[in-house]
Amino acid sequence: MQTDVLSAKFAALADPTRRAILARLARGETSVGELSKPFEISAPAISKHLKVLEKAGLIARGREAQWRPCKLNATALKEVDNWLEEYRRLWEERLDRLDDYLNQLKSKETKRERRSRSKP
Amino acid sequence: MQTDVLSAKFAALADPTRRAILARLARGETSVGELSKPFEISAPAISKHLKVLEKAGLIARGREAQWRPCKLNATALKEVDNWLEEYRRLWEERLDRLDDYLNQLKSKETKRERRSRSKP
Repeated sequence: MQTDVLSAKFAALADPTRRAILARLARGETSVGELSKPFEISAPAISKHLKVLEKAGLIARGREAQWRPCKLNATALKEVDNWLEEYRRLWEERLDRLDDYLNQLKSKETKRERRSRSKP
Repeated sequence: MQTDVLSAKFAALADPTRRAILARLARGETSVGELSKPFEISAPAISKHLKVLEKAGLIARGREAQWRPCKLNATALKEVDNWLEEYRRLWEERLDRLDDYLNQLKSKETKRERRSRSKP
């Protein structure tokens, strides 16, 4: 089955090891050997994760014979951000409403405290 | 295997039908029947998608006996946005550099055109 580009990106991001690999690559390109050091998984397992990330366009591999450095392709994440953009307004509105509600609760509480303090 | 919350969200988003369901719910809550109308898939398949979205916290289902409306939980997408935030600076820098490069190319081209026009 052909997977659409955005689905492939989301699927690639749905794994903590792959997200950790991206976080490492955000600090600069590096070799597969260096990349696998912090993970307690086999080299083939790391290679499999890298293939998923590469297929989703999230990383690129160098073509040097001896050393094939992995590089983050951060612009590929912009597509994920563009998708989220449609929903940003919705969660911001919801968080604003939650803020308003908490402020109302707080102000009611303050009034109640004042009233109980003014009572003899 | 226990899936972490963020991985569950990314996995839930890695499907065009599930993203289309979220897009429909962004316009307001609705019933499962209404939700399945635009999709050429069976009611059980839609139910399966809704379960994935619900488990990932992206939607909530009403508890009314006759009518269990589905509702988007947009604030759950904020966690995905928070994760992306770390990478935003990187792709913005890269797009800025690309802009600079294109501007340089354009200005070289303009100079070349001027020179060729000033020649007899």
